[in-house]
Amino acid sequence: MQIIPLYISKEIEFNDDLTHLIINSEKILDADVLVIAQKIISKQEGRIVELTSIVPSLLAEGIGSEYKKDSRIIELILNESKKIIRMDHGIIIVETNNGFICANAGIDESNVKHGFVTLLPVNSDVSAKKIRSEILKKTNKTVSVIISDTFGRPFRMGQTNCAIGISGMNPILDYIGTKDTFEKTLRVTAIAIADELCSAAELVMKKTANCPIAIIRGYDFKNENFSIDNLIRPQDEDLFR
Amino acid sequence: MQIIPLYISKEIEFNDDLTHLIINSEKILDADVLVIAQKIISKQEGRIVELTSIVPSLLAEGIGSEYKKDSRIIELILNESKKIIRMDHGIIIVETNNGFICANAGIDESNVKHGFVTLLPVNSDVSAKKIRSEILKKTNKTVSVIISDTFGRPFRMGQTNCAIGISGMNPILDYIGTKDTFEKTLRVTAIAIADELCSAAELVMKKTANCPIAIIRGYDFKNENFSIDNLIRPQDEDLFR
Repeated sequence: MQIIPLYISKEIEFNDDLTHLIINSEKILDADVLVIAQKIISKQEGRIVELTSIVPSLLAEGIGSEYKKDSRIIELILNESKKIIRMDHGIIIVETNNGFICANAGIDESNVKHGFVTLLPVNSDVSAKKIRSEILKKTNKTVSVIISDTFGRPFRMGQTNCAIGISGMNPILDYIGTKDTFEKTLRVTAIAIADELCSAAELVMKKTANCPIAIIRGYDFKNENFSIDNLIRPQDEDLFR
Repeated sequence: MQIIPLYISKEIEFNDDLTHLIINSEKILDADVLVIAQKIISKQEGRIVELTSIVPSLLAEGIGSEYKKDSRIIELILNESKKIIRMDHGIIIVETNNGFICANAGIDESNVKHGFVTLLPVNSDVSAKKIRSEILKKTNKTVSVIISDTFGRPFRMGQTNCAIGISGMNPILDYIGTKDTFEKTLRVTAIAIADELCSAAELVMKKTANCPIAIIRGYDFKNENFSIDNLIRPQDEDLFR
């Protein structure tokens, strides 16, 4: 299995032809998995906000004051969220409108021009599907596309890349009913392969280089249609909410 | 970057020469990262228990009865843990004696002979260091070694591979103070690269094949001495305990 960094030196802007940039940067093969950083999808889709355009609510002002944070960014976090899950140590963990549990609703000031922030794509499954279809159309290659973002997690230090949108793959590889090497049925084991692919991709994408995409080649998977919702643990099955 | 599966068809037993098996299975190069499944380390170190030898306490009997689980396994889980973090839906999440937050203290019946379970290695940093030193001695190649296990996580469905022991690498890649492409200092971003490397390795190791090791080649890292403790979030910084 290979993980190939795909470099795009151009700063991505609204309505740029991402697929064109991708296929001009690296040869795409059938069954490649393309992992694409959320940041360039957000920029391409215009999910970028100038902070001077935001008028914070009194709640956002209050939270901003308490945590010494920009109340305009708090306002955006609240807009992008269904609810606040935890708020402490100056960290705001929310459930986003799409159901992801993450800090700051995925709103990010890094790698974007001064005075602006990026929001998560409205629907990253749709973003992934669009690029997958365009690649099929332009190159006749059938790939899978995963949109990734960098999330923290409880219990363990550091962040890892996780999937927030998917097209052409089941994000979970389920071993239920499979036999182990001793012919015993494996205990319940379902691997979040979409998240593992994002983590693998992050190792070559890094944070500061112009490498917002990685191609994973030689990973054996079935081409199927699933939604990222399969990766979101329902609240009533979650011991930590 | 390449991820190379390393096949070992022999069933690992107590005191087997793992390093010998590794270097006879695949050529090792300088700066390779070897990710090794906890299961074979536990077997090699004799961290395998015959259930008929266990006399469960009354507490273990009680929990076993409530959750319809083998009270001897519950007894082992309690022995291997500092405390129970959550217990619900028949799932027991503990803090292990080494500080990992995981289900069942990492005790596992899969891929082990009938009537036996494996426990996590006593100190996986030591296990990793031993193999790293032996590889250096036998092949003159300087590698990093990570011991991995499969953990669930809150919020998201499915399990991913995580690091439980490390030698020759800082498990966290810290971007604090680094500038982004707009010359802004990046917000706090520290990537748990050891976990990402384990996740990448899992994609080729899978669960049922005789592939308990993966070599990651071409990953650019500094050879340093750090402990897995750097990946464990202190309780007072954890919003979900």
